Amino acid sequence: MKSKIKVSIVGGSGYTGIELLRLLINHPNVIIHQITSRSDAGKLVSDIYPSLRGKLSHTFVDPAKASLKEAELVFFATPNGIAMNYVKKLLENGVKVIDLAADFRIQDVSIWEKWYEMKHNAVEELKKAVYGLPEVNRAAIKSAQLVANPGCYPTAIQLALAPLIKDSLINTETIIADAKSGISGAGKKIETQLLMSEASENFRAYGLTGHRHLPEIEENLKAIAGINKIKLTFVPHLIPMVRGIHATLYVDCIKDFDPLVIFNKCYKHEPFVDVLESGSCPETKSVRGSNLCRLSFYKIPGTNRLIILSVIDNLVKGAAGQAIQNMNIMMGWSESAGLDLFVLHP
Amino acid sequence: MKSKIKVSIVGGSGYTGIELLRLLINHPNVIIHQITSRSDAGKLVSDIYPSLRGKLSHTFVDPAKASLKEAELVFFATPNGIAMNYVKKLLENGVKVIDLAADFRIQDVSIWEKWYEMKHNAVEELKKAVYGLPEVNRAAIKSAQLVANPGCYPTAIQLALAPLIKDSLINTETIIADAKSGISGAGKKIETQLLMSEASENFRAYGLTGHRHLPEIEENLKAIAGINKIKLTFVPHLIPMVRGIHATLYVDCIKDFDPLVIFNKCYKHEPFVDVLESGSCPETKSVRGSNLCRLSFYKIPGTNRLIILSVIDNLVKGAAGQAIQNMNIMMGWSESAGLDLFVLHP
Amino acid sequence: MKSKIKVSIVGGSGYTGIELLRLLINHPNVIIHQITSRSDAGKLVSDIYPSLRGKLSHTFVDPAKASLKEAELVFFATPNGIAMNYVKKLLENGVKVIDLAADFRIQDVSIWEKWYEMKHNAVEELKKAVYGLPEVNRAAIKSAQLVANPGCYPTAIQLALAPLIKDSLINTETIIADAKSGISGAGKKIETQLLMSEASENFRAYGLTGHRHLPEIEENLKAIAGINKIKLTFVPHLIPMVRGIHATLYVDCIKDFDPLVIFNKCYKHEPFVDVLESGSCPETKSVRGSNLCRLSFYKIPGTNRLIILSVIDNLVKGAAGQAIQNMNIMMGWSESAGLDLFVLHP
Amino acid sequence: MKSKIKVSIVGGSGYTGIELLRLLINHPNVIIHQITSRSDAGKLVSDIYPSLRGKLSHTFVDPAKASLKEAELVFFATPNGIAMNYVKKLLENGVKVIDLAADFRIQDVSIWEKWYEMKHNAVEELKKAVYGLPEVNRAAIKSAQLVANPGCYPTAIQLALAPLIKDSLINTETIIADAKSGISGAGKKIETQLLMSEASENFRAYGLTGHRHLPEIEENLKAIAGINKIKLTFVPHLIPMVRGIHATLYVDCIKDFDPLVIFNKCYKHEPFVDVLESGSCPETKSVRGSNLCRLSFYKIPGTNRLIILSVIDNLVKGAAGQAIQNMNIMMGWSESAGLDLFVLHP
Repeated sequence: MKSKIKVSIVGGSGYTGIELLRLLINHPNVIIHQITSRSDAGKLVSDIYPSLRGKLSHTFVDPAKASLKEAELVFFATPNGIAMNYVKKLLENGVKVIDLAADFRIQDVSIWEKWYEMKHNAVEELKKAVYGLPEVNRAAIKSAQLVANPGCYPTAIQLALAPLIKDSLINTETIIADAKSGISGAGKKIETQLLMSEASENFRAYGLTGHRHLPEIEENLKAIAGINKIKLTFVPHLIPMVRGIHATLYVDCIKDFDPLVIFNKCYKHEPFVDVLESGSCPETKSVRGSNLCRLSFYKIPGTNRLIILSVIDNLVKGAAGQAIQNMNIMMGWSESAGLDLFVLHP
Repeated sequence: MKSKIKVSIVGGSGYTGIELLRLLINHPNVIIHQITSRSDAGKLVSDIYPSLRGKLSHTFVDPAKASLKEAELVFFATPNGIAMNYVKKLLENGVKVIDLAADFRIQDVSIWEKWYEMKHNAVEELKKAVYGLPEVNRAAIKSAQLVANPGCYPTAIQLALAPLIKDSLINTETIIADAKSGISGAGKKIETQLLMSEASENFRAYGLTGHRHLPEIEENLKAIAGINKIKLTFVPHLIPMVRGIHATLYVDCIKDFDPLVIFNKCYKHEPFVDVLESGSCPETKSVRGSNLCRLSFYKIPGTNRLIILSVIDNLVKGAAGQAIQNMNIMMGWSESAGLDLFVLHP
Repeated sequence: MKSKIKVSIVGGSGYTGIELLRLLINHPNVIIHQITSRSDAGKLVSDIYPSLRGKLSHTFVDPAKASLKEAELVFFATPNGIAMNYVKKLLENGVKVIDLAADFRIQDVSIWEKWYEMKHNAVEELKKAVYGLPEVNRAAIKSAQLVANPGCYPTAIQLALAPLIKDSLINTETIIADAKSGISGAGKKIETQLLMSEASENFRAYGLTGHRHLPEIEENLKAIAGINKIKLTFVPHLIPMVRGIHATLYVDCIKDFDPLVIFNKCYKHEPFVDVLESGSCPETKSVRGSNLCRLSFYKIPGTNRLIILSVIDNLVKGAAGQAIQNMNIMMGWSESAGLDLFVLHP
Repeated sequence: MKSKIKVSIVGGSGYTGIELLRLLINHPNVIIHQITSRSDAGKLVSDIYPSLRGKLSHTFVDPAKASLKEAELVFFATPNGIAMNYVKKLLENGVKVIDLAADFRIQDVSIWEKWYEMKHNAVEELKKAVYGLPEVNRAAIKSAQLVANPGCYPTAIQLALAPLIKDSLINTETIIADAKSGISGAGKKIETQLLMSEASENFRAYGLTGHRHLPEIEENLKAIAGINKIKLTFVPHLIPMVRGIHATLYVDCIKDFDPLVIFNKCYKHEPFVDVLESGSCPETKSVRGSNLCRLSFYKIPGTNRLIILSVIDNLVKGAAGQAIQNMNIMMGWSESAGLDLFVLHP
């Protein structure tokens, strides 16, 4: 364990990339080596993101000209289907990789190829990839060289369900996840529907007929539960705000148990999961900018129905913050290094 | 049927009251007689609501000094528990009443008193009250003298469920209604949580342990279905925007049917319900300012789970617009009179 | 004067186009003939704008295939530099034209070409064009065949200044216009800075070194004043909201006068200008969706400095509404026909 | 200079108080001793502000029961007129005081009493108070025992003007400050106009006939310039967003100079003032959550008119951050201690 390592970011000009930068600049063990961007190559990072003026003097590097092997760890904050082209070489050179896109999130290649509509061309590396949800996979992450950082919805939803699934407490074929996300979850793409004139003062579902996060959630929940079948109904919605995910989960209990006991058993010592008391309603604003997941729940009296509420900041615990947490674990550092973040209120 | 009648509004200074005014000013058969307000008595309505400057010269009247009997129809846009004190006298004087609050929405007095935490003191009148959801109760509304205008969530949710419930197509004990509302649904109350500094860039559930709209929905769905038991899980959420309700419903089908056929059968001739094709996602913005409910649905392949999406403007179809629609039916006018509203986009 | 005329819109898929549609659908004297769109040709208008479902059955027509001459009046809601290519033919065929873009707003061709960075190729038609600010140019509009609909900022600013300029009451070389606009003023372009993630919770100036509306304002104010020189400092800003312009004007009085008297003299009988009392502060929300300009002012005691505040909805009085007003004048109809609009509050 | 001192906050439940807490928790030299709140006494701070859960275990103390003398430094984040009742005793006990309200911002008692409509009852202490704008008054702050933390608008405006005023470069009687603030500037008061339903999608001026920050700005600019008369026209506006002030200043130059040279001369070594190049437009979002003031300017060619743009976060550089900066100076610590803040983008 060295005191400082060189870290590079591939695809640094999107919202996940800039959020990684915000966190890495402050990280005690990291030197930011290179930040690549195809579209902004040659420009000062702080010209594209004035919020970083005075914090960073880097220039975006063309990915074709980057020397990724010089880093000890590389983050991919690229679109899906990019990291899989780089990973073999990097791993061979002893570079650790954390992919914030979806290339290594699903082990079943045929399912991945169906949902992502492309051929997977790093199937061997995929086998070695560890799904980077620390609260569930900490031990495997510790020794991983390649980590698949979970999606934002999957993080909020799996943290809500894992303790119940692990102990076989709920019916795993009737789960409903009604999830809502701020608009930064869609990234910095310029699409009509992401314009402020369209998205503000508006609320709607999307992906009703199928969302790529569904197979990711189902495969990983099956792994957690050690069972073959999980059936989740998942409907994502777009909230007219920038940051935050709120997942509302509806499950049917098949045993009698106190949810608070179950959640505390799992999360009491977790630095980034905060379990609230029964019946309370966590606000997305209370975790904005932080790596926290806040959970609460309510068992409807006289029924076996349990509701779980889970909030995260989609760009932090749902992306860059979790990636840092994974890096900390992989490097043997304090898991909270660089993640002692403060929430802005109001 | 006269060509123009006098109409008064009790409690005109809240958001439901101002919305009633916007619609009534334009109504071809109505003369606005008096608008009462305890807090703003003596002030010009257009001083409190500059958006009405030039449209209305009325002054708010102290309710104690109002001559409600002079009107042919009185709207109550008051807090819960007010209308029930006025209704007996008005009905005796042949005045029609539409209550936009909750006093007459639930026939079971003991349930009402439990949820609203007060004594009901118009029990005899309650028996005569008709629940004003036109798409379900049109015939009864036609001859009613007292109409209970439905709540905003109950409108969005019942319109989504009524066709399915009526034909006994779904399991009535596993229904889930995950509902989201813009902040104007909370009215013009000055509460910390409704401040822009608190409510913007924030999303949260509320009323997790029980919301007053639940018994209203359950009682009226039971009446529609002609059954004794309905079990609904209802979780409301607050959206950081002003107008709009989005209800996402999850139901288990117990028969094989084409939802489009069922919804069209019910709503094809309804002026204010617009059924979209399977899998589409209605936006709240597409009904903002109008009296429309837009519905869509999606049956998950290989399962019996059906998702229904329902959007309304909480202040129009969820309050003032539906009240006008009820008035039109009670008076024998065209049901759409004064309701040919245009949506502002963007 | 016929009771109903055919009207077509070139460039109907932007925000100005959709707003024209909202207003024209309701206009008592208009039949909407064709709506063109290069990008959306062949699609149902109501598929692109669900807010118009049930109001309009038109399909977007490819501009190359449109029969514009069949209309009696054509609106251009196109980018700058399009209308000038069509206008000669249309005028020759007796078709009236209202251009909502900038092609005919500035009579000085060399200034126009400098600011718009293209060659003007309808110089002869430009000479016949009338600047469509009804409160100033009503008589000329009445007999015009080609009307240049003013820009949004120029409308708010000129209505604030015209009465003062006309009577030579202020120093015309020290005027300051600090103007702020909602984001729909930038249109439906997909640019990074218009994304909700960028534009919400943000406020900034733009165009500090020069904005195309400046020469438009200066030329037309000179015409109003009948003088050769006007010097305006104009700084536009972007407000994190959708609709509305707020112009704050700072002028130095050179005579002693009561601003209320001056403004009322000009605007007392104007249907779309509402002068408030001294010291009051008009809200953009109070005119949202309407064709109104609300003005107020304050003379700082003991000084010759006068502040004028002017608010409009940029898409209505600043674009489509004013275009309808111009059409009404050109056709000899009631100037308010189709413009009795209601403001949504909240 | 001790390594850690005890600090207390009087009036900790408003937005300035919570922001002080966010910054103080992270400050290397501070132990938070007591936080008072009349309304929330006895409650956990983190129950009122869930964003602080896990960061702070303090309970709000009733101000009547607080032991303020136990602290080495006390911040007042109270309404105007409170601190002046405590200050004498505290100073006598050797406690340092920073008042974030207005009690000590204006030396001219009669002007203060006129604008704040109350009697000043700490006139002797007022004489010793130092106006806490570090970029202007650093030396005096160093040895002060009582510091008046500037208002938010005055901070943004004075930083824009000080370099120009100091060198007598502009006409001091024609200055215009068109200022815009996010809604958190109004604090956590529950007023109708601060409700999200009212304030969102709305823009308006306020205080047109006079705002209390005007005499504060004028008195302190006079002190900076060493002259008897400054005449500023100041119009504040409310932006539909939470945090941020944008001041647009219009001044008339009376000498020929390069503004960049002048601003750099003053601010090149300032840790919290960032001067941008001529013609650029700083965004409020680029300083959100940080203690920075970003400035830019533009001299209109061929005229003597100079425009200066200045942005700050009203709760940080406009309140709590500047208070911490003042504390650091008073205590002889690094001026940036605890203020190495990161901006959240998006």
